[in-house]
Amino acid sequence: MQSPPSPQAARAPFFEAFPLEARAWIHELFARRRDVRHFEPSREVSADALRVILEAAHLAPSVGLSQPWRFIMVRDRSRRARIRDNFLACRAREADRFSGARRVQYLALQLEGILDAPLNVCIAADLRPSEEAILGTTAQPESIRASVVCAVQNLWLAARAEGLGVGWVSIVEPHVLREELRLPQGVEPVAYLCVGYPARAYERPMLEEVGWKQGVPLESLTHEETWQEACERET
Amino acid sequence: MQSPPSPQAARAPFFEAFPLEARAWIHELFARRRDVRHFEPSREVSADALRVILEAAHLAPSVGLSQPWRFIMVRDRSRRARIRDNFLACRAREADRFSGARRVQYLALQLEGILDAPLNVCIAADLRPSEEAILGTTAQPESIRASVVCAVQNLWLAARAEGLGVGWVSIVEPHVLREELRLPQGVEPVAYLCVGYPARAYERPMLEEVGWKQGVPLESLTHEETWQEACERET
Repeated sequence: MQSPPSPQAARAPFFEAFPLEARAWIHELFARRRDVRHFEPSREVSADALRVILEAAHLAPSVGLSQPWRFIMVRDRSRRARIRDNFLACRAREADRFSGARRVQYLALQLEGILDAPLNVCIAADLRPSEEAILGTTAQPESIRASVVCAVQNLWLAARAEGLGVGWVSIVEPHVLREELRLPQGVEPVAYLCVGYPARAYERPMLEEVGWKQGVPLESLTHEETWQEACERET
Repeated sequence: MQSPPSPQAARAPFFEAFPLEARAWIHELFARRRDVRHFEPSREVSADALRVILEAAHLAPSVGLSQPWRFIMVRDRSRRARIRDNFLACRAREADRFSGARRVQYLALQLEGILDAPLNVCIAADLRPSEEAILGTTAQPESIRASVVCAVQNLWLAARAEGLGVGWVSIVEPHVLREELRLPQGVEPVAYLCVGYPARAYERPMLEEVGWKQGVPLESLTHEETWQEACERET
C-alpha cells in the first residue's frame, strides 16, 4: 500500500475514501482498542509517543472550534497514590451495589493501573465563560463536554496504533481530581487516564473475558425512523 | 504494506504497535475528519457503508460494558424538515448572542445539512435504570453519556475513511428530538448527525477557513502535574 499523499497532492482528493488496506487497518484499530489496566511499569512513554497521542486528541472535533480540552500529565507518585486511595474508597462504595457472588467477583476485578502505568493523563473541560459566546452551545451546552470526550477517544485510538494502552478510571471522585490537580473553578475533569505499555492484552473486552458481562449485538440497538422497543419489533 | 493479520495470526501480537504506514494513515484519518455541512443530496449511503460505520461505533469503549448507545436512522423528509425548523429557531436565538458584524457573519454560516444529507442518524444514550448497577458509574454517572460520545467519534472517523461526511448538529433542542423520534423517558439524544457524501471539503475546519475563529496550538493546552495558567508558565 502506498503512504498517504503529501499535503500538496492531497489537495484534490482531500475527502476521497481511504485505500482499502488503510480502511482494513482502521477497522482493526477500532476492534483492537481495549481499556487497559495491566501495564509494564518500567517501560516509559517517550516524549515523541506522548506528542503523537496528544496531537491526535487536539485534532478532535469541537463545538464552535472551542477546543475546550486541557491535558494534565500526572507522574508524581504520591499524588497518584492519593488519587488511587480515592479509587479504593469509591470502589468499596460501589461494591455495595452488588450482592453475594457478584460483589466478590467485582472486588476481584483489576479496574485501574494508576500506579502501575508510568503516566496518568487527566483530560479536562474548560467550561469557564469565554469573551464571546461559543457557536453551537446555546441549545446544547453539554456539547462542550462532548467535544472533550471526542478528544479522549482520538487519544485512545492513536495510542492503540502506537502499541500504547489506555485505561479510563471512572471510579474516582471529580472533586478529588479537581483538588489534586488544582483545577480552577469552571474547569472540570472529564477523563482520568492511565497510559503505558500493556502487560497483558485481552482479545475481547476484559469484562467479557472474565465473565462479568457479555456485549449485545448491534442489531438490538438500531431503530428505523423512530424508537421501537425490541418486543414491538418482533411482533 | 501488508494487510492486517488474520485473527489467528493476531493472537500473539494482539497489542503490538501498528506498522508505520498504517499509523501514517491513522494520523491522516484524524487530520482529514471534518464537520461536514455540504452534501451531495442524490448520492445515497449504501446499507454496506452504513453497516461499516455503525459497527465502528459499536466497537467504542463503554463504562462497565454498558453499550448504552442507540442508533435511530432518520430518512423521512417531513420529520427532518420539522427538525430543521427547530434548528432555524435555535439559530435565530443563538444569533442574538452575537452583535453587529459577527451576527451577520454567524447567520451566513452553513451550519447543518439536515435535508441535504441523504441520511440523518441520532445517537442516543439509554440512561434508564438497568436490572443490575453498571460497574464504574457510581462516582461518575456522566460516564454513561461519555461512552455514547466515544461511539459518535468512532462512527465519525470510520465514515471519513469511507469518504463519507458527518456533521453534528448541536443547534437543535433535545426535547424536539425526543418527541420527533419518540424516545422513551430516560433515553436522551446525544448527537444528531447528518451523514452523506460531501459536496465540498475544507482542508482546515470550516470555521477557520471562513475566518470565524482560529484554533490554538496544542502547547497552550497542556499542563505538567497540576494546572498552571499560561501567564504563570511564562514567568
